[in-house]
Amino acid sequence: MSHNSFGHLFRVTTFGESHGVALGCVVDGCPPGLPLEAEEIQAELDRRKPGQSRFTTQRREPDQVKILSGVFADDRTGGRQLTTGTPIALMIENTDQRSKDYSEIRDTYRPGHADYTYEAKYGLRDYRGGGRSSARETAARVAAGAIARKVLPAGVRIRAALVQMGPHAIDRANWDWDAVGRNPFFCPDAEAAARYETYLDAIRKDGSSVGAVIEVVAEGVPAGLGAPVYGKLDADLAAAMMSINAVKGVEIGDGFASAALRGEDNADEMRASNDGTPVFLANHAGGILGGISSGQPIVCRFAVKPTSSILTPRRSVSRDNRDVDLVTKGRHDPCVGIRAVPVAEAMMACVLADHYLRHRGQVGTPA
Amino acid sequence: MSHNSFGHLFRVTTFGESHGVALGCVVDGCPPGLPLEAEEIQAELDRRKPGQSRFTTQRREPDQVKILSGVFADDRTGGRQLTTGTPIALMIENTDQRSKDYSEIRDTYRPGHADYTYEAKYGLRDYRGGGRSSARETAARVAAGAIARKVLPAGVRIRAALVQMGPHAIDRANWDWDAVGRNPFFCPDAEAAARYETYLDAIRKDGSSVGAVIEVVAEGVPAGLGAPVYGKLDADLAAAMMSINAVKGVEIGDGFASAALRGEDNADEMRASNDGTPVFLANHAGGILGGISSGQPIVCRFAVKPTSSILTPRRSVSRDNRDVDLVTKGRHDPCVGIRAVPVAEAMMACVLADHYLRHRGQVGTPA
Amino acid sequence: MSHNSFGHLFRVTTFGESHGVALGCVVDGCPPGLPLEAEEIQAELDRRKPGQSRFTTQRREPDQVKILSGVFADDRTGGRQLTTGTPIALMIENTDQRSKDYSEIRDTYRPGHADYTYEAKYGLRDYRGGGRSSARETAARVAAGAIARKVLPAGVRIRAALVQMGPHAIDRANWDWDAVGRNPFFCPDAEAAARYETYLDAIRKDGSSVGAVIEVVAEGVPAGLGAPVYGKLDADLAAAMMSINAVKGVEIGDGFASAALRGEDNADEMRASNDGTPVFLANHAGGILGGISSGQPIVCRFAVKPTSSILTPRRSVSRDNRDVDLVTKGRHDPCVGIRAVPVAEAMMACVLADHYLRHRGQVGTPA
Amino acid sequence: MSHNSFGHLFRVTTFGESHGVALGCVVDGCPPGLPLEAEEIQAELDRRKPGQSRFTTQRREPDQVKILSGVFADDRTGGRQLTTGTPIALMIENTDQRSKDYSEIRDTYRPGHADYTYEAKYGLRDYRGGGRSSARETAARVAAGAIARKVLPAGVRIRAALVQMGPHAIDRANWDWDAVGRNPFFCPDAEAAARYETYLDAIRKDGSSVGAVIEVVAEGVPAGLGAPVYGKLDADLAAAMMSINAVKGVEIGDGFASAALRGEDNADEMRASNDGTPVFLANHAGGILGGISSGQPIVCRFAVKPTSSILTPRRSVSRDNRDVDLVTKGRHDPCVGIRAVPVAEAMMACVLADHYLRHRGQVGTPA
Repeated sequence: MSHNSFGHLFRVTTFGESHGVALGCVVDGCPPGLPLEAEEIQAELDRRKPGQSRFTTQRREPDQVKILSGVFADDRTGGRQLTTGTPIALMIENTDQRSKDYSEIRDTYRPGHADYTYEAKYGLRDYRGGGRSSARETAARVAAGAIARKVLPAGVRIRAALVQMGPHAIDRANWDWDAVGRNPFFCPDAEAAARYETYLDAIRKDGSSVGAVIEVVAEGVPAGLGAPVYGKLDADLAAAMMSINAVKGVEIGDGFASAALRGEDNADEMRASNDGTPVFLANHAGGILGGISSGQPIVCRFAVKPTSSILTPRRSVSRDNRDVDLVTKGRHDPCVGIRAVPVAEAMMACVLADHYLRHRGQVGTPA
Repeated sequence: MSHNSFGHLFRVTTFGESHGVALGCVVDGCPPGLPLEAEEIQAELDRRKPGQSRFTTQRREPDQVKILSGVFADDRTGGRQLTTGTPIALMIENTDQRSKDYSEIRDTYRPGHADYTYEAKYGLRDYRGGGRSSARETAARVAAGAIARKVLPAGVRIRAALVQMGPHAIDRANWDWDAVGRNPFFCPDAEAAARYETYLDAIRKDGSSVGAVIEVVAEGVPAGLGAPVYGKLDADLAAAMMSINAVKGVEIGDGFASAALRGEDNADEMRASNDGTPVFLANHAGGILGGISSGQPIVCRFAVKPTSSILTPRRSVSRDNRDVDLVTKGRHDPCVGIRAVPVAEAMMACVLADHYLRHRGQVGTPA
Repeated sequence: MSHNSFGHLFRVTTFGESHGVALGCVVDGCPPGLPLEAEEIQAELDRRKPGQSRFTTQRREPDQVKILSGVFADDRTGGRQLTTGTPIALMIENTDQRSKDYSEIRDTYRPGHADYTYEAKYGLRDYRGGGRSSARETAARVAAGAIARKVLPAGVRIRAALVQMGPHAIDRANWDWDAVGRNPFFCPDAEAAARYETYLDAIRKDGSSVGAVIEVVAEGVPAGLGAPVYGKLDADLAAAMMSINAVKGVEIGDGFASAALRGEDNADEMRASNDGTPVFLANHAGGILGGISSGQPIVCRFAVKPTSSILTPRRSVSRDNRDVDLVTKGRHDPCVGIRAVPVAEAMMACVLADHYLRHRGQVGTPA
Repeated sequence: MSHNSFGHLFRVTTFGESHGVALGCVVDGCPPGLPLEAEEIQAELDRRKPGQSRFTTQRREPDQVKILSGVFADDRTGGRQLTTGTPIALMIENTDQRSKDYSEIRDTYRPGHADYTYEAKYGLRDYRGGGRSSARETAARVAAGAIARKVLPAGVRIRAALVQMGPHAIDRANWDWDAVGRNPFFCPDAEAAARYETYLDAIRKDGSSVGAVIEVVAEGVPAGLGAPVYGKLDADLAAAMMSINAVKGVEIGDGFASAALRGEDNADEMRASNDGTPVFLANHAGGILGGISSGQPIVCRFAVKPTSSILTPRRSVSRDNRDVDLVTKGRHDPCVGIRAVPVAEAMMACVLADHYLRHRGQVGTPA
């Protein structure tokens, strides 16, 4: 057991606080012989990096990743750097640790944050920037996800997008994956993205914040991944996504909407195909039946609550049990859900890589 | 790692197929010295038992539990049966294994069921009654949950209820925990329950089915349970609930609704109290902040899809890749979500018991 | 984590007390499609069964194993019973639970037994026949081992033998695997076995007991099994063997003798072979280098202490802290090491099966 | 599961190769509030550091440890640096990575080393200085052990010593713990140590190497630690010690010698004491009964094989399957067992810390 690890055969352990010396992860169980360069991990990290638009925190962290172990550039193989099958340790040094005044956050509990609960649990907390509870920890996930992608079979494609900001859902008829990279919200609906710009500017100027819904889709996943009944693929995805900071709900396929359906509308029918595998006529199930992938796209959505750090004064208490009114200053995201998009992809990749190896262990290489 | 286990210090491993010899579980890590009689476990199982109203499957299983190990009635302690700290194995024999004709289910894949995916994964499947993928497996969870409740501190109270059937949500203003035991739906809104009766009768007569939403609430949970960042209490709850058959979504506190909120509406404010701990002025967070319990009630909801076994003919394929039309005959629940209510309580109890022991291990007994 | 489980991909959880209702195990992660009949497991159990000669305890237990789950006889495959990939639960009911007088063992701590330590740990203990600490638990290991053998590639052969009884080692020049089945000691040296008969008769008549050394050898194991650095094959074997009742030491290859060697005598030299893999010129390493199998026979030995239950009065204390003199009556093995032989094979099989699947997961099927 | 982790509640994951960028570990599950400075860890590392006498490798590594996370110096607590309950990552940068000629080791398999098996498993290997299989990995264990010591109750004292070099055992009548720090062999028998100096000089000049036996003793361990039956304290110690590089055997208490004893000589008798706990009249069991600590000193011994790197030419094969004769040049320990002494203490400390927390989780704080 490890509180700070997930996965079994593709196992990720993360460490580090927001304003400590460094954060990072150890990826254990990675198959040997995969080409891996720091630049590839860096590319994923750069997608998540703060400060890329006015809609994410202005904290500037280069978030430069360093591979400490687990790879080797053998001159016998043309000097190409390959994974060796041993633990891959990645480190990101914290360079933007300005010595600021933390006295307010030190002595009071910010509403919506983990300040009170960390202190209730551990009796103390690293209060600088949220310490371990900071969303900065997700950088380590993204780094691990970059490795996980390499473990998956070539045909697997994992993409995520923001599908709702505050109360405003996208129009799914406008869905265009190419749009995702063209707006600062990772939004697949270009029209919605244009509206979000005005909307979020207003929120930001108010010193307020909003929540979001993220959808992550994995295509090309072979049928058979997932291990009933407590290692179900959807159960592991639920835990993976819920473990992301500020996430309050996770659903697969039709999710909560499926509760309102009747059986004949929900169960995805099938038809025979030429290649011998069934063709599904719908995907209400989100690609998972009985905890096992069906070969259809895996569809997972999760809700991110609004950033708790806002400029409106909030009622709270101090460590010594006095009433206080609190304003969270500092650099914060008006919609922390935006930067959850690359994190969602990373978590999906890690869960799938783990189940791919688990399946190969028990049953052999998937067809 | 074990595909069929969950929890770490309070660890539950289940086994068994719907129509095999027996199903059951092994509970490992239970503290010693807790009074435990089979009758207490049986009482919980009886709440989940099918055939108690016309709204659940008419399959009649006595579901009689037997304790195989891990308890001892010492004459030195008045013959009271106590847990010994060793693994508690529980077994429920399958007595209603009528030899029926399984040829249709054997040779075709029922839409919405795990027939195809089990076969895609394992190359074969026990097709009798769904085998391992049958909701019958949840009996083992309920049995384990009965033990978990005993591990938790005295003040912890865990209750679940059905809060939506098909598209019909309850009126939360009518919430009455006492009502839950007085209708066949575990519904806390007596008026809604009355309407559900007519509604579900119609669904049943149509040979159709509907989904549901279940809410489970744990009160009296001490602050400090949960272990960031991958052993977050909400992450473990999400996995636990998602692993229940037919569940497609899980949320904590305001869940998906929180995405539509602004920061000032979502973050629960606090005020000082006489006992030195903060009083929260709301519970949007559902009792969990940063993955750690706050002392507020823990609120978790999940969506159950409609039973896939319906009388309407559905398009599907056979094992040998021919198109077929399929009607699932047999005894089935028109709303499988109903019987998920005691299962929800059991899973909540198991997750909390595990985290209670984990916390005690790392930090000491919670205050 | 589970105190009563071992292995990761081939995972065994055992339960049960010596004189409880039943004991058994759950084997999770077994590959699907392996033929498995209760009779095959029974055959292994019968080798371990007590009461087969005057040199093992006269407690008569039929030790009849029942498969509760995880197998299915599909009429499509000629009714042959196959593993399904789901947990295989095995149960052995305790039938020889004579209601005897346990008052002495109840109120005092037998020297060399776990009576005192179980009570110090748990505050209570099932004192009937040693409860969970009884060597009877090893029946569950043997049952699991019978399944593990089926997971391993066809060429793997696992055999164990008793190589020392009390101070009397066998003459390794006489080693004959066929002899093992022809004497009541699983001894590969027929001459030593003949002497052991007289020797152990005398020990038995004295009401005394002796220790033993067991050697277990696995041939045909492919190179590459074992996962450095904490999942080393030898580390897992050491834990597996040390977890057997009464074992006090474990060694691989030359073991403790290697401490006395010089480097040039210890490191096994190699020569090129026609099939492209190196030929080792010796096997001081016992088939494991750096925690990974080399393709040579894996050789593991362990020491079993003498049975602590003897007829000579021993000084001890009562639960209420009074000095007592104690004689352990009842049916006991004069050399408990004898019956450890099939257990050793089972543990070797389980560890290898686990590592075989682990390797397949991370790297793919071994060549 | 993680191949490179051990422990459950006190969980250590190590990473790094001999000549990579850095090595280190992540310690997860450490209780919060323990004072921890890098200097304290450094002090333990310095005991293990190579190049301290002519009897250990002359490779000079400063082995400077850096704490990356999991501690916090709160000005509210006088700036004393405390553990926070989050993962503690430690890093040791590799500074002595001279670019040397690795062509020989690259293309051939050194006898007794893991060269061949790593390559058989992974298809490639980091051949620089042994890569992951280098004894350099044990630095991370020692660092973790320094933290583990702080987790244990105040009265626990862990010390190790070298008790045999080559075929020469110490005279246990001369045992003096204070002598251990006064000779370059960690030997508790000053007379033996003096003889070892001459002996090992000769070995070293021969370009040869010898094995050793190390004994590690933990005093003051409360009764009740250890979790039957697969989490037995002795089983976990066996795995922990066997996982150390070059270890070929592990024993507890009398170990292999107990096989030669009779029951009446082996089982440690007890007498009542004034404090209500039994006094043991001997410690053949090495402080563990039924896998649980008895309150007596825990005594564990292990055998280290002679260093495989020697100057005598050895027969081997090349990667391309040709016969070669090989001499391992470079800086090596003539008796690698010497530096295993601090590693032994560290592993004992980690195993005990883990079981201390596991016991507290299941049963509560030990008396």
